[in-house]
Amino acid sequence: MDKTKLSQIGEFGLIERIKSLLGSELIGDDTALIKFGSESLIITTDVMVENRHFMMGYPPSAVGWKAVSINVSDAVACGGRPLYITVSLLLRDIEVCFVEELYEGIKKACKFYGCQVVGGNVSASREVAVDITLLGSVKRFVSRAGARPGDSVFVSGTLGDSRAGLELIKMKKKSYAPYELELINRHLRPTARVDYVKHVSKYANACIDISDGLSSDANHLAEASGVRIDIDASKLPLSKELLAFCESYGKDPLDYALAGGEDYQLLFTHPKERWNPFLDMSEIGTVSEGKGVFLNGRPLKPSGFRHF
Amino acid sequence: MDKTKLSQIGEFGLIERIKSLLGSELIGDDTALIKFGSESLIITTDVMVENRHFMMGYPPSAVGWKAVSINVSDAVACGGRPLYITVSLLLRDIEVCFVEELYEGIKKACKFYGCQVVGGNVSASREVAVDITLLGSVKRFVSRAGARPGDSVFVSGTLGDSRAGLELIKMKKKSYAPYELELINRHLRPTARVDYVKHVSKYANACIDISDGLSSDANHLAEASGVRIDIDASKLPLSKELLAFCESYGKDPLDYALAGGEDYQLLFTHPKERWNPFLDMSEIGTVSEGKGVFLNGRPLKPSGFRHF
Repeated sequence: MDKTKLSQIGEFGLIERIKSLLGSELIGDDTALIKFGSESLIITTDVMVENRHFMMGYPPSAVGWKAVSINVSDAVACGGRPLYITVSLLLRDIEVCFVEELYEGIKKACKFYGCQVVGGNVSASREVAVDITLLGSVKRFVSRAGARPGDSVFVSGTLGDSRAGLELIKMKKKSYAPYELELINRHLRPTARVDYVKHVSKYANACIDISDGLSSDANHLAEASGVRIDIDASKLPLSKELLAFCESYGKDPLDYALAGGEDYQLLFTHPKERWNPFLDMSEIGTVSEGKGVFLNGRPLKPSGFRHF
Repeated sequence: MDKTKLSQIGEFGLIERIKSLLGSELIGDDTALIKFGSESLIITTDVMVENRHFMMGYPPSAVGWKAVSINVSDAVACGGRPLYITVSLLLRDIEVCFVEELYEGIKKACKFYGCQVVGGNVSASREVAVDITLLGSVKRFVSRAGARPGDSVFVSGTLGDSRAGLELIKMKKKSYAPYELELINRHLRPTARVDYVKHVSKYANACIDISDGLSSDANHLAEASGVRIDIDASKLPLSKELLAFCESYGKDPLDYALAGGEDYQLLFTHPKERWNPFLDMSEIGTVSEGKGVFLNGRPLKPSGFRHF
């Protein structure tokens, strides 16, 4: 009997096994495209678990906001618009006001992103978890598999802020500088890039949201597309807050930009000339024939968050 | 500051607070009806949590089967047909083969019910949980709120078997009689009544699946419909296996039929003359003006499973 444990094969090894077991082509992207009558629907699901993705000391409304945002981020990455969510809560015997504030955050996020809660469930558990499934609409489904040689590689916003924010939270300082509070906020209340839906669905050949960290997610995109990606380290977009943080604490911003995770920015590819000056997008590299991801010509291995 | 704990208000108290907070009419039934272009869709979500809904010693394929079935049951109760599911797994560092066998059960159930897995997620946690969201189609949405005075009250199948099966599992006997194995199987591998979809969607004025136990679910239906329900105890459908169990262990079958829970049978109302002889439905009572649920004329209070 096979005694292999999850920690020996990891999250991605497990997903590969499940995919081959189901024998379904529908599984693979973070978001699945399904046809329903004449409509094209997308569906995606993601969870926030106590002590893994948040601590009970966090503002509950931020946890609710983020639980919606991480799902919206997956929808946006395939060019989809969020419409409906269901909220499945696993709860310990905590205070009711925690759940109410959590839902305030969910409600606020839904209003911001233009979707609504249509159902849910509550169950007891030893750890609190907020598991959300999102339904959306899509005109053109953009997968992570469509990058073409000749494309440029772009990212939205800035990278690495979320991890810096997480490290600041863990420092438990008595007071924080304004730029530190800004980084903390980017970790607690990331904003899914709904402002990119039009651009992605119209122009991107491939897109993925940066949840595991640029190095991991660029490798996912390159592998799924069967292409080589070259990234120019000097072009990675870094916030002034992250630079101040690295200056203060003697850190290398590159580490944060590459392996940060939870930025919920978008990584996408399309021809250079489709660059949109009205968006905060940065060109960070190029797509060519081959395989693997390279940073300044040297192989860039996946890093970032590991589940098991 | 409000220090009320979840255990003080219970699952249903919490759901009421969430409903009023969201101010949404969409929340209330186990399944939500959403319009998508010209299509009517239903969406529902339910979870199986380690040590609450299953033990790690159970066959993993049965856990997978049941996780799908409890969602299909909610879909059927509103007259819906299951189409697509997403599977969100919370996992400890257990053996990979547990997850593979779990997915075998999910796959088998999907084949049986005519739906398919279109997406999912895996995350680490301290307890294993299988959280499923189901999308389906519906021609006429049947809620729990439509029961009319003059309707008869029906249930599908037999009641109380699942709880008897659970108690048998807990006895940890060295060997079980065939009828005991049958009861255990009804707890581990309940079958959602997809064979009732046509009947429910065509004829039922109100319907709910019996997951919390007949006494609780009849109260849910009566309250949502604003009617009184009278149940005749002598008409409750009992299996020969449950009767043998109660005979052997000195139990009252009525307790099991009323407060058993997890039967995943259907409780529905419609005029008596719509009775269908090709289904295993039993007429157990009547709907009239008023409120509350009565068993042989005496108030029947909700009982059954409590989450917190």
